[in-house]
Amino acid sequence: MTLTTVSEIYAFEGIQGVYKHASDVTNCEMEFSVYVPSSAALEMAPVVWYLSGLTCTQDNATTKAGFQRTASELGLVIICPDTSPRGETVPDDPEGAYDLGLGAGFYLDATEEPWSSHYQMYSYITQELPALVAEHFPVDLGRQAIMGHSMGGHGALTLWRKNPELYKSVSAFSPICHPIDAPWGQKALNNYLGTDVGEWSNHDACALLLNHGPIEGVQILVDQGMGDQFIEEQLKPDQLELACGMVGQDLLLRRQMDYDHSYYFIATFIEDHLRHHAQALANL
Amino acid sequence: MTLTTVSEIYAFEGIQGVYKHASDVTNCEMEFSVYVPSSAALEMAPVVWYLSGLTCTQDNATTKAGFQRTASELGLVIICPDTSPRGETVPDDPEGAYDLGLGAGFYLDATEEPWSSHYQMYSYITQELPALVAEHFPVDLGRQAIMGHSMGGHGALTLWRKNPELYKSVSAFSPICHPIDAPWGQKALNNYLGTDVGEWSNHDACALLLNHGPIEGVQILVDQGMGDQFIEEQLKPDQLELACGMVGQDLLLRRQMDYDHSYYFIATFIEDHLRHHAQALANL
Repeated sequence: MTLTTVSEIYAFEGIQGVYKHASDVTNCEMEFSVYVPSSAALEMAPVVWYLSGLTCTQDNATTKAGFQRTASELGLVIICPDTSPRGETVPDDPEGAYDLGLGAGFYLDATEEPWSSHYQMYSYITQELPALVAEHFPVDLGRQAIMGHSMGGHGALTLWRKNPELYKSVSAFSPICHPIDAPWGQKALNNYLGTDVGEWSNHDACALLLNHGPIEGVQILVDQGMGDQFIEEQLKPDQLELACGMVGQDLLLRRQMDYDHSYYFIATFIEDHLRHHAQALANL
Repeated sequence: MTLTTVSEIYAFEGIQGVYKHASDVTNCEMEFSVYVPSSAALEMAPVVWYLSGLTCTQDNATTKAGFQRTASELGLVIICPDTSPRGETVPDDPEGAYDLGLGAGFYLDATEEPWSSHYQMYSYITQELPALVAEHFPVDLGRQAIMGHSMGGHGALTLWRKNPELYKSVSAFSPICHPIDAPWGQKALNNYLGTDVGEWSNHDACALLLNHGPIEGVQILVDQGMGDQFIEEQLKPDQLELACGMVGQDLLLRRQMDYDHSYYFIATFIEDHLRHHAQALANL
């Protein structure tokens, strides 16, 4: 598969790149970023997928989360995909709202019109993009972790629980833990998947854990700012804690006083998350 | 003086704030950012002024340079001013170029029309803004350092050399070392100060050092990426090295292979710069 380099810039002795390619899955051109630490010149590196939240592209986390320093130290490749398909042919929310359509793919494969022809972010991130990345970068896909923020935290938790053989470690910042029971989630699931709530439960971290049980040997790391305006209505970390408790899933949920939903919160604690993943991937 | 809070967000146990105020010096509303580490709750903190480059506002360094982590650890207040006056009444380059007018104040007091009524960034940063900051934040103005990037590196070097009693430590990323002899500098100095090249030499780091000599006990730290597209024509670090050598000014000029002019370069080495300043300020 062909890859076009948008930019490659030195950062912390590694290379922070941005690339684009024609996707057969989302049926449009997709952009993503890859940080390759210098250590990957010697040995294929483990990979951390970073999934971003509503309204973001790959650019937000790449420029503001500050992951390059610790990724360089730990020898991790960090990949930031976009949050939705893009382009003139891609449908958007008819009212231009930020929580559906462009920037709001919710990391699932849409089955409903007009979304289904492009909004296939689940297959894109779990299948097409890893294959492309493996062709072009020094990555060891036997050692993958996944993390994300807000909608991307939902993506990380659900993609991990549906594919524990792919992702050996998982973490999230301020994830949408129970989208079935939150306005953002309900709007997206209803539009992308239709009205069958049974199908929704395949894209809800709490429901997946309750229906399919825990993954042994994996500790979920979640940081949640307690000054986050979305915590009560949209994110619901208490529900994740409850679901993990019920099924015996190991969860480290850290409630961080005063922090909000922003990239400053992510930047503050991302070192902890990358160390969490590096340790899990080192044991493979 | 009245200060309006634009935002205050927790970051690395401190507060990253953005504020605005009516400036009597630049004759318009000005915005700036202040990072206050948690240690400042116990003791007035030393201050590092961070001056940004062409096209930037306070926002670029605040969100992308990643200084909050080390500032928190070292107990430094970091202040990022804007790079020019702003607003409907403020003149801009007639052709809308990025290297004159808005985003291009060059850290001097303009004497020429139409610039002189607003473009007073030298007095704003050395006098009005410190007084305002001292009123509202837990800062020790007896311990100030100054640094900057590109045009802001020029600002840091010239403001420091003209005011060594204010700034006890100085550093720069990719500074415009000799604006008298560079297209960006010549355009700005000609417009803001007129055609008297003698006056230009008061705003040129190399000329200031040659004309006024070194500052004893201060080591200038400069990082310059060797993959920087502007190095030969606009930045001229060799000229700074030459001037420092001629007058006996202590300079640590680090030529960093492969790095470019971007915020990734700054983020990579800003920890070193903050440690340089913290050490200098600790000895006061």
